[in-house]
Amino acid sequence: MSAAMDRAGFLARLAGYGDMTRRTLLERLPSGEPEAHLYGPIRDFVARSGKGLRPALLLATCRAFGGRVEDALTSACALELLHNAFLIHDDIQDGSEFRRGLPCLHAQLGTPLAINAGDAMLAGALRLLRRNVGDLGPDTAWLVFDEFDRLIAESLEGQALELGWIRDNDLSVGPADYLRMTLKKTCRYSFIHPCRIGALIAGRRGAALDAFDPFGFLLGAAFQIQDDVLNLVGSRDRYGKEILGDIHEGKRSLMLARLLGLAAPEERRRLGQFLALPRAGRGAAEAAWVFEAMQRHGCIDYAQDAAARLTEGARAAFEAAFAGAAGEDRDFVAQCLDFVTRRDA
Amino acid sequence: MSAAMDRAGFLARLAGYGDMTRRTLLERLPSGEPEAHLYGPIRDFVARSGKGLRPALLLATCRAFGGRVEDALTSACALELLHNAFLIHDDIQDGSEFRRGLPCLHAQLGTPLAINAGDAMLAGALRLLRRNVGDLGPDTAWLVFDEFDRLIAESLEGQALELGWIRDNDLSVGPADYLRMTLKKTCRYSFIHPCRIGALIAGRRGAALDAFDPFGFLLGAAFQIQDDVLNLVGSRDRYGKEILGDIHEGKRSLMLARLLGLAAPEERRRLGQFLALPRAGRGAAEAAWVFEAMQRHGCIDYAQDAAARLTEGARAAFEAAFAGAAGEDRDFVAQCLDFVTRRDA
Repeated sequence: MSAAMDRAGFLARLAGYGDMTRRTLLERLPSGEPEAHLYGPIRDFVARSGKGLRPALLLATCRAFGGRVEDALTSACALELLHNAFLIHDDIQDGSEFRRGLPCLHAQLGTPLAINAGDAMLAGALRLLRRNVGDLGPDTAWLVFDEFDRLIAESLEGQALELGWIRDNDLSVGPADYLRMTLKKTCRYSFIHPCRIGALIAGRRGAALDAFDPFGFLLGAAFQIQDDVLNLVGSRDRYGKEILGDIHEGKRSLMLARLLGLAAPEERRRLGQFLALPRAGRGAAEAAWVFEAMQRHGCIDYAQDAAARLTEGARAAFEAAFAGAAGEDRDFVAQCLDFVTRRDA
Repeated sequence: MSAAMDRAGFLARLAGYGDMTRRTLLERLPSGEPEAHLYGPIRDFVARSGKGLRPALLLATCRAFGGRVEDALTSACALELLHNAFLIHDDIQDGSEFRRGLPCLHAQLGTPLAINAGDAMLAGALRLLRRNVGDLGPDTAWLVFDEFDRLIAESLEGQALELGWIRDNDLSVGPADYLRMTLKKTCRYSFIHPCRIGALIAGRRGAALDAFDPFGFLLGAAFQIQDDVLNLVGSRDRYGKEILGDIHEGKRSLMLARLLGLAAPEERRRLGQFLALPRAGRGAAEAAWVFEAMQRHGCIDYAQDAAARLTEGARAAFEAAFAGAAGEDRDFVAQCLDFVTRRDA
């Protein structure tokens, strides 16, 4: 099989799992009243959702360990709905304007109704898991529930860390703090638990599940750093978010954490002043200066290098975590590594 | 037993159930990192929570039907935590300033962290229910979970209705719309489901549970109307919220719904203009004019009369719903009727 075919096959499988999850999720979402201010916007938001990397990882891991897609589909739907719930509240919290190339939900509905829609999706994700009781039996259903419980708690803890740094204008955040936050906020719900849940449904237990933790952490950190780099160097058309949005947000990315450590006193003072402004007061010229300072201090190269090293680590951890797996779905997860860390859009 | 002793006994029981729930809930809340921006504020918010009417109703209903407090305590804690989660997001959505006589959580922490804390409490409430599996067995535990699922969905639907009216500046909202919204938003989670869950844990099923629906609806509507009247005629010191806050919010209370139906064309035009302003633009003088128009058209008397009739209906529905119940806890629920509909603070 050629590398080009590998890539095409990977993308086809990703699209297949993503589409199956989105289609099933849309079927299972409620559609009653109020339509205009709740269920309609939720369905529209889900319908235009992204690639479905998280459900694909969950479904592929399940199959790689001998489980069946139909047993894991409910959990994949719940994870995708939860992801969309997080995005809606995230965008409000970050003051973002665009999501997937369109105005954010709070820009369409207003913040009060967008908060409410996110709440309904968070609760709705847990409701979906109810179906696992009949499909998987109560014991496994509660174990899956526990995985969701953990990933939700950790994600919200990571979010509190990140928002707290911005709120307090914390200039002491270093690369280690960034990684600790990312482990909680991104790695768990996007990588660690999708693998754990897929393997759990396939019958794995205990230490065999814990092997996904280092794999998901290393891969998730590489992914998040790459995502943050793209936010700075990608264009809006390709990426679907505003240019230098993270800098405007004051987001403690790895690049900013690195810059805070390297900046000369005068630069640090200027940076602190910029970050102390309310978001609306952070002008484009100052944001461009921050970006230029990051380039001058090699912070973007540093982040890209860190992502590459984390990817290397993830590759080794993959071998350990997926030692008992086989088939095309194992290959699919292996290729997620390249996809997640080399994508440019 | 004198009426005065009844009242004292009622208040003692209410305080007892409320304190027991709050104490147990505080013990079961997580306390790890991040403390300053997540778990600390959550514990503080719960610690200063209100009377605990919802958990008291749940616990009393359980005991009135022969169940045990210790079997219902987990559900009471989850309900109280959920109530607090709703309040935090509500205050953001309404742009409120005070809660329980102190600044709202979003005024303390900022909106992003307050949204996040509310999310953690919503998810945390469902997590608490996990313990029911061991205590009540998986079948009853899932039935309780289903009750929570229903009450959360209905509450968020009611919230979407109410927020949608404000967002669209809907001037066609009438008393029937108000009651439909209140059934979803308030009655279910504050009255119907606390009773249903308590009785469920005591072993009631099916139609015996559905008998709580009319009781909870009638009582909940009476309560909410009384609460809205208090917002207008109570003082901040006694009530813990800002004066005429609901009018500033543009909240479609029964009084406003009535006024919209009765106002003369010129009044209606002025009212529409006031409600079309952003909240911050709705001045004190105009709000006072709205209040005065409500008084002139007898809207407050109308609402108080409606609350009295609903209370009468609730009294009849109580007899049907609690026909199989006995003892002091049945009396307690009966006295909730008076407490909820006659309180002046």
